[in-house]
Amino acid sequence: MNVQVKARPLPQPANQSKLATADCDIHPQRASDKDLHPFLEKRWIEHMQMFGSRPRQAYQSGPAYPKSQPFASRRDAWPPGGRPGSSLPFLREQLLDANNCVLGVLNATGDNGQSFQNRAFGAAVCHAMNEWLIAEWLEPEPRLKGSIVVPYEDAEAAVAEIERYAGDPRFVQVLMLNRTSEPPGQKRYWKVYEAAAAAGLPVGVHAFGFGGYPVSGGGWPSFYIEDMVGHAQSMQSFLTSMVVEGVFERFPSLRLVLIEAGFAWVPALAWRLDKLWHRLKAETPHLKRLPSEYIRESVWLTTQPMEEPANRAHVLDAIDWIGWDRLLFATDYPHWDYDDPSHVLPLPVPEAKRRGFFLENAVALYG
Amino acid sequence: MNVQVKARPLPQPANQSKLATADCDIHPQRASDKDLHPFLEKRWIEHMQMFGSRPRQAYQSGPAYPKSQPFASRRDAWPPGGRPGSSLPFLREQLLDANNCVLGVLNATGDNGQSFQNRAFGAAVCHAMNEWLIAEWLEPEPRLKGSIVVPYEDAEAAVAEIERYAGDPRFVQVLMLNRTSEPPGQKRYWKVYEAAAAAGLPVGVHAFGFGGYPVSGGGWPSFYIEDMVGHAQSMQSFLTSMVVEGVFERFPSLRLVLIEAGFAWVPALAWRLDKLWHRLKAETPHLKRLPSEYIRESVWLTTQPMEEPANRAHVLDAIDWIGWDRLLFATDYPHWDYDDPSHVLPLPVPEAKRRGFFLENAVALYG
Repeated sequence: MNVQVKARPLPQPANQSKLATADCDIHPQRASDKDLHPFLEKRWIEHMQMFGSRPRQAYQSGPAYPKSQPFASRRDAWPPGGRPGSSLPFLREQLLDANNCVLGVLNATGDNGQSFQNRAFGAAVCHAMNEWLIAEWLEPEPRLKGSIVVPYEDAEAAVAEIERYAGDPRFVQVLMLNRTSEPPGQKRYWKVYEAAAAAGLPVGVHAFGFGGYPVSGGGWPSFYIEDMVGHAQSMQSFLTSMVVEGVFERFPSLRLVLIEAGFAWVPALAWRLDKLWHRLKAETPHLKRLPSEYIRESVWLTTQPMEEPANRAHVLDAIDWIGWDRLLFATDYPHWDYDDPSHVLPLPVPEAKRRGFFLENAVALYG
Repeated sequence: MNVQVKARPLPQPANQSKLATADCDIHPQRASDKDLHPFLEKRWIEHMQMFGSRPRQAYQSGPAYPKSQPFASRRDAWPPGGRPGSSLPFLREQLLDANNCVLGVLNATGDNGQSFQNRAFGAAVCHAMNEWLIAEWLEPEPRLKGSIVVPYEDAEAAVAEIERYAGDPRFVQVLMLNRTSEPPGQKRYWKVYEAAAAAGLPVGVHAFGFGGYPVSGGGWPSFYIEDMVGHAQSMQSFLTSMVVEGVFERFPSLRLVLIEAGFAWVPALAWRLDKLWHRLKAETPHLKRLPSEYIRESVWLTTQPMEEPANRAHVLDAIDWIGWDRLLFATDYPHWDYDDPSHVLPLPVPEAKRRGFFLENAVALYG
């Protein structure tokens, strides 16, 4: 491990023997709804107590979690007296210190207001989430940085939330979910991307969401594993829409981070887009370049859940196509399908690629 | 080209200089609805004239075709006095003779009864399509073999249609479309697979269909190219459902052919399925083996539209994973995105693989 110690760009006092890491998908949870009360108007506190969140589809009929692992969490991730992901001291010890994590990106995805059907209530909860992130996580722990929770189905409200925190160094990203009400490249969402690009913030798009459709075009699946596999198809359609609608042409400085939906599917999708675009470019005159060029230039991907083919060299082939500078290590803590940094790379890789994968790509992207 | 001539397994009098080919996706079209009248009861002829086909979604809101290429066809594929694909003499000359095609599989996908909302009418039209195939195509031209058009949304009617033609050497496959009303691995469809397996016929699943959902879980897309790219995601969800529901475990002799949705996505999908199944196998105790094993053993894929990455070796890597014995050359004649056999393979490949790709895999599968 000496090579890693020598090469570590940001030396840490703890865990001298370990490579420093950035963790680009950590899920903080509120211990209860009361955590948001200081940041909500009285009317919304009462609304929350009376009506709840009312997303378009119940968790159990769409992005379900295995019931045997409550909150989709690791069995060892329960802090004393609270639910997984709700205790900063516990998270510091179990995640940040243990992994020598020097940069952790907080994606507060749970029941966060983003797709509440009552859009005004949703926007209020998104804002409360951001204030809660600052108060409970970002101020006390400088290793942690936040993704701004935005009510993207109401683009104007989302823009207001982005502009509120633009330039705040505690936030490094704008957070969306992948299953939007309509395809995410469509005009109704452009203001969100414009505002994020103007603020110099990447848009992080996390798997799951509440568009109201089944995870794939095939209809409502029988099994949890189909929903989990389906995140990859769902993210393919997200990226397709973003490319084909010309979002990257309109906002060339926009950077997109695809979170928790794998990455090995990217080459095949890009080939298909390129081939069809060669023949159909008359339909989309707003596109000036090959679809794959927009993807290579503007898209990053988090690594968890890491692809694990039987022939482990295959995953490195996929990364070669995508670019070693485009992958961002992530654990998905505290969720059950957590990836451990000491096991995630299937084969030895050269030191420069390894450092990029675990830390430097994230530092370059998030600053 | 001498090597090819020497190695050709089924010498043909015409086109001595060309490798013999099998074309596993040819679309015959009726010149008009009247072609089906000899095979329909009077009540259904009247119904067709009064009500039309009424699929769940209109062509223009789902699987659209570019209007500038009517019937989605090659501009040179119009026979004198008819619509593309409607003339056997013209198809013989333009396709079979020109490509030295010794086995052509007819997939009669257009307005064929499979997803008519009036299920009884749909079943009658499916049967009429099969009788029309025999009379107009399969009897006059022994190089052509048929896929049995079955009304798969009514499994019992589909089984009756399969049993009607089981053992008839003019038919080599059972035809479905990829966008079913519910995920295709679900119990309501099992009888179809059971009957096909019992008849020794592969089930060919062609892109497109009328499930009523958008092509992907992202919602209704703006552009034709998104529908075309989406066929690959849609087929991923089809295959996922077939594997996860245990269709291949229940019917081990079932062979599945995925038609016109590409193939380079197969490895990434299989890796994701395998990884998640290792962790979630308790949910699907009916699965006894790795998802990728079912795929490798039971799935074939047609080649058109052929993937064309910028680095052409990449497509050969994908084929290496899938298996060179699992790809079936197809042109999609007479459609606009036709693949020409003389250009489809991006790089020279060894003769044995080449023969399998163009002919022998199809002969082995379809007999």
